[in-house]
Amino acid sequence: MPPVTLYEGNTPLIPAPRLAAEIAPGAELHLKYEGLNPSGSFKDRGMTTAITQAVSEGARAVICASTGNTAASAAAYAARAGLKCAVLIPEGKVALGKLAGAIAYGADVIAIEGSFDDALRMVREIAETMPIALVNSVNPARLEGQKTAAWEITDHLGGVPDWLCLPVGNAGNITAYWIGFCQNGGPKMPRVLGAQAAGSAPIVMGHPIENPDTIATAIRIGNPARWKQAEEVLRASHGMILAVSDEEILEAQRLVATLEGVYCEPSSAAGLAGLRRAVREGTLDPNGLQIAAVLTGHGMKDPDTTIRWHRSEPPIASTTDALRQRLERK
Amino acid sequence: MPPVTLYEGNTPLIPAPRLAAEIAPGAELHLKYEGLNPSGSFKDRGMTTAITQAVSEGARAVICASTGNTAASAAAYAARAGLKCAVLIPEGKVALGKLAGAIAYGADVIAIEGSFDDALRMVREIAETMPIALVNSVNPARLEGQKTAAWEITDHLGGVPDWLCLPVGNAGNITAYWIGFCQNGGPKMPRVLGAQAAGSAPIVMGHPIENPDTIATAIRIGNPARWKQAEEVLRASHGMILAVSDEEILEAQRLVATLEGVYCEPSSAAGLAGLRRAVREGTLDPNGLQIAAVLTGHGMKDPDTTIRWHRSEPPIASTTDALRQRLERK
Repeated sequence: MPPVTLYEGNTPLIPAPRLAAEIAPGAELHLKYEGLNPSGSFKDRGMTTAITQAVSEGARAVICASTGNTAASAAAYAARAGLKCAVLIPEGKVALGKLAGAIAYGADVIAIEGSFDDALRMVREIAETMPIALVNSVNPARLEGQKTAAWEITDHLGGVPDWLCLPVGNAGNITAYWIGFCQNGGPKMPRVLGAQAAGSAPIVMGHPIENPDTIATAIRIGNPARWKQAEEVLRASHGMILAVSDEEILEAQRLVATLEGVYCEPSSAAGLAGLRRAVREGTLDPNGLQIAAVLTGHGMKDPDTTIRWHRSEPPIASTTDALRQRLERK
Repeated sequence: MPPVTLYEGNTPLIPAPRLAAEIAPGAELHLKYEGLNPSGSFKDRGMTTAITQAVSEGARAVICASTGNTAASAAAYAARAGLKCAVLIPEGKVALGKLAGAIAYGADVIAIEGSFDDALRMVREIAETMPIALVNSVNPARLEGQKTAAWEITDHLGGVPDWLCLPVGNAGNITAYWIGFCQNGGPKMPRVLGAQAAGSAPIVMGHPIENPDTIATAIRIGNPARWKQAEEVLRASHGMILAVSDEEILEAQRLVATLEGVYCEPSSAAGLAGLRRAVREGTLDPNGLQIAAVLTGHGMKDPDTTIRWHRSEPPIASTTDALRQRLERK
């Protein structure tokens, strides 16, 4: 059967010299802009494979737990395939652009009085007893799709970067990238820098977080499904994982948007915030290194957080004089 | 000098058989998904050329009037180039995802007590008297960039489609596509179906609209800058232009999202709404035709409008039983 596809992947790898000068001087920094996938995040890479598999196995309906991006992606690919789709989200904790997507694609959006971790437990149990396919990243087909981003980075650079920086939530993506780089077959592997939000950093802390809290809703996960694999990647790659504050995340988001014209959602900037911290603390010397940072989702996923930064000014009259005065004042 | 680029363009052309069966039976329908450009709309194609030109001419600052998409795009490319950027928008009439983008990229976002048409008049006057480059689509470099979408469609299809359907606001895009198809050099040209929103349909009505009004904010323009060129395209292509209601636009947006998994902003669906109307009224027989519809911007540009569709249900308890009951009810 033909794959269920929306022409995901093949996202740009954008050189970021101005950002590098600011946060990693001397490095050659590239941004893998996964926000340009069809539903606006890297989740689409794994959803084409998961939904294709579900269809091939005769599924009529799919379900997932989500902090938002998986919901929008599952809803999109289920719509494309003509499947029913239900998505579980933690009430009040999903960014607006993600919620809108899931709704637009026609999914049954089910808010729960609980966390992502609760939602994941619920859908795992349901999938065992009802005829409905689970498309969370506990589904191995998801990782098989997601790993393709590692291949694209290798192709674009003509080799493997020295470091890969990315946010870590449920830890599916760090696992998938590692699989991809391993399957490159070459001797060189990147070192991996993972970043968690300080209020939601179970791997950094070494224990599950009961009530994870961060503005970076996409990585607001207290008990990652791929925890063990993430630790293996960090060990095998001689990598590091660190916790960055919401302030550091928002500052990294601001820097990449204003210096490079690349707008990502807050959680996507966590990898850059982690890189910046490691350079500042001297645990990573960027000089001469080739670094790829994964921006997992588009900034439009979470417009509210951006608007909240902004001190808006009152409107001006619609005259050229009023405009001239405003421009001369700046 | 190197171009100022964010790797815009090369957007997918997505086959839409389920949507075709619904709105244009017998046609081979393709969606040019321009929402996957870096700032989320087709405007990026022309902004790379306009900002590159501005930099090459020594500009230090750029300005534009916008219903939102141009603002986000200009802000992104100005940031990328290290230029100052001011964007004029009609107060309260810009979709959230666009406003957030312009803010995030660091532009000076200036709301005016007036319409897009007022804003365009103001920036044209300012650009004549202050050292600030105008990057609206009255700038011919914009059209030179935007025309590339026509070439991509031709490349992907291995030929020119029978019809091209697209929304018409300021009429820069319909003009740019036509330039692109003309420069293909082949004998075949597409027929062009343009769609305006009923409350903002100056070309259909034959006179400027003083107070344009529509939910499709991106085409809420009462006096298009490229009006004359649009009429020439319609005449030369044996095309048609029609006005579609906000209800028809929202229904087309819903159909393309739920049947194909492609989420576009309301105005982007106007071309599909126009196609649907023309087929229903019998002015366009779709049978056997190859049709390309341009979806100008991503649905995440305007999440509020999507949320407003949705009758949300109260959250459920975080138990598997509560989830089973909810699923069995549907």
